[in-house]
Amino acid sequence: MAEPIDFYFDFSSPYGYLASTQIDALAARHGRTVAWHPFLLGAAFKLTGQRALTEQPMRGPYALRDFDRSARLLGVPFHLPHAFPFFALAASRVFYWLEDPSRGQALAKAVYHAAFGEGRDVTPVAAVAELARPLGMEGIEHAVELPETKAKLRDATDRAIARGVFGSPFFIVDGEPFWGHDRLGQVERWLATGGW
Amino acid sequence: MAEPIDFYFDFSSPYGYLASTQIDALAARHGRTVAWHPFLLGAAFKLTGQRALTEQPMRGPYALRDFDRSARLLGVPFHLPHAFPFFALAASRVFYWLEDPSRGQALAKAVYHAAFGEGRDVTPVAAVAELARPLGMEGIEHAVELPETKAKLRDATDRAIARGVFGSPFFIVDGEPFWGHDRLGQVERWLATGGW
Repeated sequence: MAEPIDFYFDFSSPYGYLASTQIDALAARHGRTVAWHPFLLGAAFKLTGQRALTEQPMRGPYALRDFDRSARLLGVPFHLPHAFPFFALAASRVFYWLEDPSRGQALAKAVYHAAFGEGRDVTPVAAVAELARPLGMEGIEHAVELPETKAKLRDATDRAIARGVFGSPFFIVDGEPFWGHDRLGQVERWLATGGW
Repeated sequence: MAEPIDFYFDFSSPYGYLASTQIDALAARHGRTVAWHPFLLGAAFKLTGQRALTEQPMRGPYALRDFDRSARLLGVPFHLPHAFPFFALAASRVFYWLEDPSRGQALAKAVYHAAFGEGRDVTPVAAVAELARPLGMEGIEHAVELPETKAKLRDATDRAIARGVFGSPFFIVDGEPFWGHDRLGQVERWLATGGW
């Protein structure tokens, strides 16, 4: 059985959202599954000295245009939330509290769709709880404050950084790292050919 | 007659080199020509707060791997010069001193190939002069020091920044900006469809 593709992302990342709409189908075309790994991109930014693209002179206006253009090309809805950039702490914690990968993916897709498909504010715990409820997930408000929940997200973020992950989305395919939704073409080629 | 594609690049940019090996043929497939515009990326970095990717923690090691992997995928030679990043002042000045676009392109291709196809140091004026000589270009050593040559490069850099150019390579197609050699797929689609 081939290893899953590791998909690292931050819930506040527009390009992470775009990749999230593509990666499962891409992997399936090559008989692979995807291990989803949300992490706190801000922790990596502390090491790289980066900040959100939209907050950077010149790069910000371009990024807004590119988010929208890239989403149109993929045929997926895109609306930047009014409050952006945002800090997706609650959703990230809940993902790891769920422990079950398929439930985690279901929540992640709901959160990403709400945030960037519909432009909703997913930062409040109540917003995440509202998205989790139709998926049969209860007790979110309590879970996000548990020390063990917090520790799980910290550990996941540390592990991502230890593997060299510094951006969102970031993929690792059989040990090969790919950064950016614009590397999905290379990821697909890598899977098809075993590398070049 | 359709407008040329504007291709902005810095001679010290590996991704600019990769794009330079593709853009003319890409444009020709859609009946377009390319206007080549070297500029000093460092002037844009002063505004955006960026610096060379290879000098950044975490992003540097990834960039080295990605340069090489992307070049292999395109089937073009790639060798990073020993002294990198470098400041391509002489080549950039000579380009604008030549004034003739087709001579400028010939020089640009020779410089890029020497720098990243062969990993040679193209920073000394003598190195640029050596590359220019087989193209029938003489007097480089004198030309780079002329005040009007210096002014032409400054003006070109100012114009690029005024158009929102902050990275290398950067393309403008019928008013639409595209940043990165990894946007060449979008550039080609834009040319084929007139935009989406």
